[in-house]
Amino acid sequence: MTKSEDTIQLAHGSGGLMMQKLLGDLIFREFGNEILAQHSDSAILQIGGSQLAFTTDSFVIDPVFFPGGDIGKLAVCGTVNDLAVCGAIPLYLSVAFIIEEGFPLKDFETIVRSLALEAKKAGVRIVTGDTKVVNKGKCDKVFINTSGIGRFREDGRTLGGTATITPGDKIILSGTIGDHGMAILNARESFQFRSSLVSDCSCLNFLIHSVFDAGFQLKFMRDPTRGGVAAVLNELASEIPYGIEINEDSIPLNPRVRAMTELLGFDPLSVANEGKVVMIVPETDAQAILKTLQSNESGKDAAIIGVISNERPHKVILNTFSGGKRLIDVPAGVLLPRIC
Amino acid sequence: MTKSEDTIQLAHGSGGLMMQKLLGDLIFREFGNEILAQHSDSAILQIGGSQLAFTTDSFVIDPVFFPGGDIGKLAVCGTVNDLAVCGAIPLYLSVAFIIEEGFPLKDFETIVRSLALEAKKAGVRIVTGDTKVVNKGKCDKVFINTSGIGRFREDGRTLGGTATITPGDKIILSGTIGDHGMAILNARESFQFRSSLVSDCSCLNFLIHSVFDAGFQLKFMRDPTRGGVAAVLNELASEIPYGIEINEDSIPLNPRVRAMTELLGFDPLSVANEGKVVMIVPETDAQAILKTLQSNESGKDAAIIGVISNERPHKVILNTFSGGKRLIDVPAGVLLPRIC
Repeated sequence: MTKSEDTIQLAHGSGGLMMQKLLGDLIFREFGNEILAQHSDSAILQIGGSQLAFTTDSFVIDPVFFPGGDIGKLAVCGTVNDLAVCGAIPLYLSVAFIIEEGFPLKDFETIVRSLALEAKKAGVRIVTGDTKVVNKGKCDKVFINTSGIGRFREDGRTLGGTATITPGDKIILSGTIGDHGMAILNARESFQFRSSLVSDCSCLNFLIHSVFDAGFQLKFMRDPTRGGVAAVLNELASEIPYGIEINEDSIPLNPRVRAMTELLGFDPLSVANEGKVVMIVPETDAQAILKTLQSNESGKDAAIIGVISNERPHKVILNTFSGGKRLIDVPAGVLLPRIC
Repeated sequence: MTKSEDTIQLAHGSGGLMMQKLLGDLIFREFGNEILAQHSDSAILQIGGSQLAFTTDSFVIDPVFFPGGDIGKLAVCGTVNDLAVCGAIPLYLSVAFIIEEGFPLKDFETIVRSLALEAKKAGVRIVTGDTKVVNKGKCDKVFINTSGIGRFREDGRTLGGTATITPGDKIILSGTIGDHGMAILNARESFQFRSSLVSDCSCLNFLIHSVFDAGFQLKFMRDPTRGGVAAVLNELASEIPYGIEINEDSIPLNPRVRAMTELLGFDPLSVANEGKVVMIVPETDAQAILKTLQSNESGKDAAIIGVISNERPHKVILNTFSGGKRLIDVPAGVLLPRIC
């Protein structure tokens, strides 16, 4: 009999430790090259005279329709956001469907329309695609892959990179956390919270570029999807010689999400988001960047949640409500499968 | 109860008529823009000063290991070929896995290695990726999406386009047809032919660019995958004001493939290939291009199989062995699901 450690497990796709190990041990080794090795959400490519960002994401979310969106909208937001958090302006998307035989055409049409609408809103064009159908029972309703290409700003404003991060830099979160994960779990499990939990699924490109437009440069950005803010901050902490300190009482949290995470024993820091960005910014610009974010509807709940610290290098520490300190780890196993 | 015409059917993904209808009615309408409307295997993009080709393909082949390759190799060849047949030089690939929980890690490693090896052989770099895992039973082993970016040649040699096609132009096929489809069917159904049927799965970029390198320009190219040569020629016939005539006795066909298609009642013209290209070339260059192709190992069986004709516009006519004429139609239903 095959032992479970010899097989792919859900946690290999969770954004946590097992996924990092699979990527590190196998994928980065086999595919290894200096571009892939940047470990970024998008690859940065030089083609001819142009610098481009290139990224890919498959979406296998269950259910395909959920409060706040559907798999079509999500497939646009996810890839647009992966480009935007690299400082790129998203331009073009590919869309590839894998559809289960017997999936209602009407539902497929709804998804296609939603995808087209979100692309239009985000200012990106869908330029190439693919459609595969598999026999009933060989996939679950519909999976979508989107890949995206973006260009960099002509004014040269972009990310400084992790090497520019220094103690004192502030950590900004663009809004409440955990909304997507809890909305999906709620929709899936039919808890009593149904009407009041809505995914934050949205495109961040205009919000992010409003900060560049205002004249700021940013040091680092990442959208906290699978694995949540905890995964993003731990990955960052592993790449810099400093520690990260965040304050529980500064973290924006929808009261309904707070209630649900407390009830179910989830740490909202590890729950997935689909319309939020974590930024590392110079201390001197932090208040002005915060104001710029807050002046956007999609950044109205933005907050400074912490600081890059000289203490405890490579660790993420939470200053709790009660005045204690808690180590925030990378989520180890699988929190919520098929969250995106 | 939902009627079958209200649901997605296997034929929607077959490369035939139902797929054309789904694309035309829904996808092109909703995603419509002048780039997508080119109906090409790759989108041609202008970014900054650079012209790029961009394409995507999802691979859901069953079985994932087959004589002549596996889903990893196929995922590279399919996307490299989609770029190459547009005249582009493939440069960068994204790779996104959707893996079924419980899939043996060893098999996954084999696929990743095969993918990495084929990318290396084809001279393309894997620069960005994604890994999702779904619960057991929610997909079938592993699906792979690859998207690709290519650049165009600096010497300007490229495709003339369908508008340059005129009667007298020759139709070249780069080798035997039907090998992939019959190898997959054989592997899947465990017929007696097992040992002797091998997929033609391979990257065509070096073969195709050897023709450009030799100083030729081509009018049109397409790789005959799902729907086979019949689908490619019918799609082309629908776009030009001329007819297409091909000769049964010129079409390269592996005797074992011939035997199996005859036994099972398949038309080899409709069977999928994964390492062949159909070219439309000026009559005056046809022999020289053929020689160039034949001087490559992967083009050694290349043949001129037909001609663009003034007669029967929009139709594809086969001159049969027996001296008759047969109309070659687009495959209507689903020939072989999950062939790629």
